[in-house]
Amino acid sequence: MLYLVESRVAPPAEITPEDWQRLAQAESDYGIQARRDGHLLHIWRIAGRYAAMSIWEAADHDELHALLCGLPLFPYADLTVTALATHPSTLRWGAIQSGQQT
Amino acid sequence: MLYLVESRVAPPAEITPEDWQRLAQAESDYGIQARRDGHLLHIWRIAGRYAAMSIWEAADHDELHALLCGLPLFPYADLTVTALATHPSTLRWGAIQSGQQT
Amino acid sequence: MLYLVESRVAPPAEITPEDWQRLAQAESDYGIQARRDGHLLHIWRIAGRYAAMSIWEAADHDELHALLCGLPLFPYADLTVTALATHPSTLRWGAIQSGQQT
Amino acid sequence: MLYLVESRVAPPAEITPEDWQRLAQAESDYGIQARRDGHLLHIWRIAGRYAAMSIWEAADHDELHALLCGLPLFPYADLTVTALATHPSTLRWGAIQSGQQT
Amino acid sequence: MLYLVESRVAPPAEITPEDWQRLAQAESDYGIQARRDGHLLHIWRIAGRYAAMSIWEAADHDELHALLCGLPLFPYADLTVTALATHPSTLRWGAIQSGQQT
Amino acid sequence: MLYLVESRVAPPAEITPEDWQRLAQAESDYGIQARRDGHLLHIWRIAGRYAAMSIWEAADHDELHALLCGLPLFPYADLTVTALATHPSTLRWGAIQSGQQT
Amino acid sequence: MLYLVESRVAPPAEITPEDWQRLAQAESDYGIQARRDGHLLHIWRIAGRYAAMSIWEAADHDELHALLCGLPLFPYADLTVTALATHPSTLRWGAIQSGQQT
Amino acid sequence: MLYLVESRVAPPAEITPEDWQRLAQAESDYGIQARRDGHLLHIWRIAGRYAAMSIWEAADHDELHALLCGLPLFPYADLTVTALATHPSTLRWGAIQSGQQT
Amino acid sequence: MLYLVESRVAPPAEITPEDWQRLAQAESDYGIQARRDGHLLHIWRIAGRYAAMSIWEAADHDELHALLCGLPLFPYADLTVTALATHPSTLRWGAIQSGQQT
Amino acid sequence: MLYLVESRVAPPAEITPEDWQRLAQAESDYGIQARRDGHLLHIWRIAGRYAAMSIWEAADHDELHALLCGLPLFPYADLTVTALATHPSTLRWGAIQSGQQT
Repeated sequence: MLYLVESRVAPPAEITPEDWQRLAQAESDYGIQARRDGHLLHIWRIAGRYAAMSIWEAADHDELHALLCGLPLFPYADLTVTALATHPSTLRWGAIQSGQQT
Repeated sequence: MLYLVESRVAPPAEITPEDWQRLAQAESDYGIQARRDGHLLHIWRIAGRYAAMSIWEAADHDELHALLCGLPLFPYADLTVTALATHPSTLRWGAIQSGQQT
Repeated sequence: MLYLVESRVAPPAEITPEDWQRLAQAESDYGIQARRDGHLLHIWRIAGRYAAMSIWEAADHDELHALLCGLPLFPYADLTVTALATHPSTLRWGAIQSGQQT
Repeated sequence: MLYLVESRVAPPAEITPEDWQRLAQAESDYGIQARRDGHLLHIWRIAGRYAAMSIWEAADHDELHALLCGLPLFPYADLTVTALATHPSTLRWGAIQSGQQT
Repeated sequence: MLYLVESRVAPPAEITPEDWQRLAQAESDYGIQARRDGHLLHIWRIAGRYAAMSIWEAADHDELHALLCGLPLFPYADLTVTALATHPSTLRWGAIQSGQQT
Repeated sequence: MLYLVESRVAPPAEITPEDWQRLAQAESDYGIQARRDGHLLHIWRIAGRYAAMSIWEAADHDELHALLCGLPLFPYADLTVTALATHPSTLRWGAIQSGQQT
Repeated sequence: MLYLVESRVAPPAEITPEDWQRLAQAESDYGIQARRDGHLLHIWRIAGRYAAMSIWEAADHDELHALLCGLPLFPYADLTVTALATHPSTLRWGAIQSGQQT
Repeated sequence: MLYLVESRVAPPAEITPEDWQRLAQAESDYGIQARRDGHLLHIWRIAGRYAAMSIWEAADHDELHALLCGLPLFPYADLTVTALATHPSTLRWGAIQSGQQT
Repeated sequence: MLYLVESRVAPPAEITPEDWQRLAQAESDYGIQARRDGHLLHIWRIAGRYAAMSIWEAADHDELHALLCGLPLFPYADLTVTALATHPSTLRWGAIQSGQQT
Repeated sequence: MLYLVESRVAPPAEITPEDWQRLAQAESDYGIQARRDGHLLHIWRIAGRYAAMSIWEAADHDELHALLCGLPLFPYADLTVTALATHPSTLRWGAIQSGQQT
């Protein structure tokens, strides 16, 4: 199942640049692992913001929640989750691509 | 370039079901054509709403605007466009997939 | 999986009381069927509003979306869906109730 | 009487992880006790957030207020309370389950 | 138990002045009856708006909901309900007035 | 003249429990004095929040402003003031109670 | 006492230009009368909107409410009232102008 | 003086395509005239919306208001005006371009 | 030209009462000077808030911006500026007062 | 391609005036360089706020994002980006100016 996750990150005032850099690196590593595991499908930067839109695949809400809570920057992020159902256009396009429809 | 488009559709009170169905079919056909042309990359239904999240590829804002204005349901839709920049995680994942990075 | 659905209903100005009553009855029948099928677990009226909070069980977003779109009052309702993950307190309470924990 | 309580928790910047963990444990214990007392009926995690939706049973607003103020994390939580009235669908389902209606 | 109810009324465009006047009169009569029954304790006009703030006494949410749904103008009103718990200052003032405290 | 005042209090992070308790006590004393002076007519706790709804009587805005600015917790409170005009239903109920109307 | 009133006017779709012009003229006449009576002190157009900011003088909320309800365009206006207390700077300026202060 | 004007246009439901096209043409002609007169300096389409951002030059608010009220689509537009002051960076760039600064 | 300025002031947590008092005095002096210079025409306290509504006269946006930036409390204030155009009612009232109209 | 960027700057509480001045100077220098490079086309101060509206030219979202992230004040700014498509009025005005249209 797919979820759209909008995340806005606000570094805390009192953190040192080094500590923040370490967290950001851990966040990147975490994202790569989520890619390998097939959970993180897409992630884009919202132009002009320390924020991202990402598409996650998870078996259910619990798995998604665990994945997001595990993000090293989770304590400094404001996440909004939108449940994404299959769009009829996607079904039709799939049928066309597989030759079942013109 | 990629854009996230959130679209919420509100059928007008005075339209007949037949006319709305004709528009909806035209919208679907339009979406398939946009797929063929490589403009519409993804579209998902927002669960529980007559609304969608979609990812569009366009050369520039003008092309995106023309694509969206061309949607048969455009007059009945409220569209919000977010410009999506490349996320560093995506670059890193691309490099890993192409063997340039572990 | 569980979803919280907040639904606010606004009867259209031009509908007759009889037609609205027929729709409302169909909505009620639909709800009972959803109960029988194990999809609608709870529904409460938001005091003072023609609105409800309900807890739905669905295998995935697609099933939820189909269930909600099928509501006879769907065209006149504004639905907001929240994905509900399992709370650690619920897990602990379950373990206590089953004797695994005190 | 039932209340829906949406709670969003924001750990203060200056608290130590140990102190926060102690508070979180106390919050969990408090929740279990509220379960035993029949006040806390349901609690779910809002997927992706340090937030929860919960259903509370209380004799009146004063009892609810006392219950919520007693939460160890109350000082760090933003709570929104919605009064939930009985939904006609719930009455009808009860009558069906008890054989009074088909 | 007490509830604060903020109600904003929007007369529908297509109603005749006479029909609206009849509804408004029925609303007033309903309010007086609610006074007699001890449900409506206070009602004030929000200066400058066709809106009111009112304090209602009801045994529980169901009774409040039934009272508010019964308002002749309910279909044209947007109601927001706030559950009001007893304030410690009110308890202290009561004790002072009854001589138990100075 | 009557005013509805919604007040939301947010204790500052750096204050000691003792200092806050002293302020809260001073706030309570201030409220009792306002009762004696006929300014504070009603105050209720918003269930689930460190917030209150209160009805104040003041000769004019200046007096109300002075009364509210004098609240010991004023620097930590977010106050919203609504001017309350007399509701026709209140006039009618007054006439009924005084026998002038049935 | 002074009130700031922000009013946004939305002509109804179904009114004829002639009827609207008659209402607008009546509104202007009403405003002039309110000037003569010392109630309307200032009124400005919000640049770019069919909206206004105005300063009203009224003995109390009831008088203000009656004045605003009497506006011919009241049924088509969304009014927001802000109670304005005397600013210390105004007092000081008054004292300077009257020679009591330099 | 410069103003940023955000305008969102909502064609009324009951207008014919021909009448709307006539209005849109008049709006375009009006815009060209405003260009000739040096009032309309820039106008851009908000990608994906029947909305625009425009920069207007006017001697004062009255002139701006008259210019905007004169727009044929004014009755169907929601306009938000932002007063734009000169940015220090613009002054510095002007000095650089005119050789007064490097 | 006239501007309505809504200003909400939030004293920073870490400032001493003495320093804040000095700033507040400087703000008052600044306001008196702005009065003398004919820039500050009116200022009122928003009842119940450390906030004000004020009417400023300035030759253009730059002058207004410089005036507002010069306020000693500017760094701690959130200012919203509304450009005020002349209202037709004001023109008519001026003509009546000067005998040109009845 | 053009983007409208609204930026609101909030200096952090704990920064020294000297450090902030150094950042502001670096921001100005950065803006001048962006002018030279043809990226920053316009920038205006929002009257009354430490905020700006600016028009940026960038080849794509990535370039815009890099430009904005490079702003020395980026960590203290809240940026909102709007993608600006070409307005038909601008095309028509261009054709008139180049003699292709009257």
